[in-house]
Amino acid sequence: MELLDKVIEAVKECKQIVTAPFSVSEKGSLSNIVTSADKAVEEFLYRRLLEILPEAGFLGEEGDACQGKRYLFVVDPIDGTANFARGTGCSAISVGLRKDDAPFLGVVYNPFTEELYYAQAGRGAYKNGKRIQVSGRDFAHGLYYTALSTYRKEYSGLCMDILAQVFAQCDDFRREGSAALELCRLAAGCGELYFEMRLFPWDVCAGEVILKEAGGCFTGLYTQGLKQDQPFPVVAANSPENMEKLLAIVTQALPALPEGYF
Amino acid sequence: MELLDKVIEAVKECKQIVTAPFSVSEKGSLSNIVTSADKAVEEFLYRRLLEILPEAGFLGEEGDACQGKRYLFVVDPIDGTANFARGTGCSAISVGLRKDDAPFLGVVYNPFTEELYYAQAGRGAYKNGKRIQVSGRDFAHGLYYTALSTYRKEYSGLCMDILAQVFAQCDDFRREGSAALELCRLAAGCGELYFEMRLFPWDVCAGEVILKEAGGCFTGLYTQGLKQDQPFPVVAANSPENMEKLLAIVTQALPALPEGYF
Repeated sequence: MELLDKVIEAVKECKQIVTAPFSVSEKGSLSNIVTSADKAVEEFLYRRLLEILPEAGFLGEEGDACQGKRYLFVVDPIDGTANFARGTGCSAISVGLRKDDAPFLGVVYNPFTEELYYAQAGRGAYKNGKRIQVSGRDFAHGLYYTALSTYRKEYSGLCMDILAQVFAQCDDFRREGSAALELCRLAAGCGELYFEMRLFPWDVCAGEVILKEAGGCFTGLYTQGLKQDQPFPVVAANSPENMEKLLAIVTQALPALPEGYF
Repeated sequence: MELLDKVIEAVKECKQIVTAPFSVSEKGSLSNIVTSADKAVEEFLYRRLLEILPEAGFLGEEGDACQGKRYLFVVDPIDGTANFARGTGCSAISVGLRKDDAPFLGVVYNPFTEELYYAQAGRGAYKNGKRIQVSGRDFAHGLYYTALSTYRKEYSGLCMDILAQVFAQCDDFRREGSAALELCRLAAGCGELYFEMRLFPWDVCAGEVILKEAGGCFTGLYTQGLKQDQPFPVVAANSPENMEKLLAIVTQALPALPEGYF
């Protein structure tokens, strides 16, 4: 069995955990919550993924960083926790694997809709067994996925300025509340443009591999010298042309990280 | 068999139509599209619903108004057509029935996730057989569903001003792209606040019944003298307190309908 298949198997095994009853607690702000299911999934994946690849390190949303290994699992046990706690079915388990500090493998699985996205560097991206690729739409026909910096509302005005500029030139926008699934939407040709002000490696590690293998563009802004568990702004698009246009809008509004960003 | 059960049966029969191949065409603007499935579902429901209640009139998104009957079916064959055309699974068949010009019965069905919401005046609201009710959250813990007037972008700035004010005081926002399903989210306790600048009766007729029967508040603004097939702004909330607060923000930004609204 190949590494990717083993990781997919482990991720799908989490379904029994996330469909069981759970409790909710806040971590710092109203909308930044964690559930007992987040913790249980992370503990399960920590054990299970290191069984599959014992030489790898493990970086999870709820715990533990690990430096200096050739392979690093980067795991969001439940991306879209607020949706999960509400029972809306728009959340996902996101497992990325980096190799030699480059994106290597990604699995994003929504256990409520059975959407399963996965990719390995150089081998293409798939959704439930079918090859996927980004759309060919231009900016004017594009759908923009974004958020307004929910956990750090001091940046909401900036995000809204960018939304206003992008929305005036594209078709429409969406805000579904799971970065991992939204990047997969771009990969599957259901959206073209993406910006979020402040995401962590576990939010996007899997999505980056999947989007790039589907032919899309992904970049973290101002990431030089970043520590393994620090956040960064993310810009993504279906094509180099749309990426260039979106990046111009974002970097003009956000020429550097604001003081106190980390 | 009761009327509500018969309407539910008819709506569920549409699944075979919407899961078959379809074609897409534009109607007026980039994002305002119609598919062959919209037309086929509406034709099917026109025949099927009038079999169930021959004395009723029928008002659909894609066709025909009908005045002066005691009962009126108000039908959006596919609410969230842009999502449907993209294959994201966030769209629904929405059938409302008005009796003596008041909301009487509503069915909203997402054939891709099998979410089925329904209600009849005075009998409570249900999702897949289970009674639902609005959440008890206050404004600060509330989730705001909204849009930016996609089909009439001259009102986007206004919608963004309202978004900025609401977002500053609530928890987070979502934009899923189906008014019918978003109103059902509020009914099921997955959101608290709702505003859209310009909706048609078929977008909200079913959702209004379901939300009110779940204990929520719904109002169309500036609807006096409105014709049966004209749009209006919609404000909705989980509680009278949140409704009052949201209405104050909306009506201050929008004290009357702008010139050229219809």
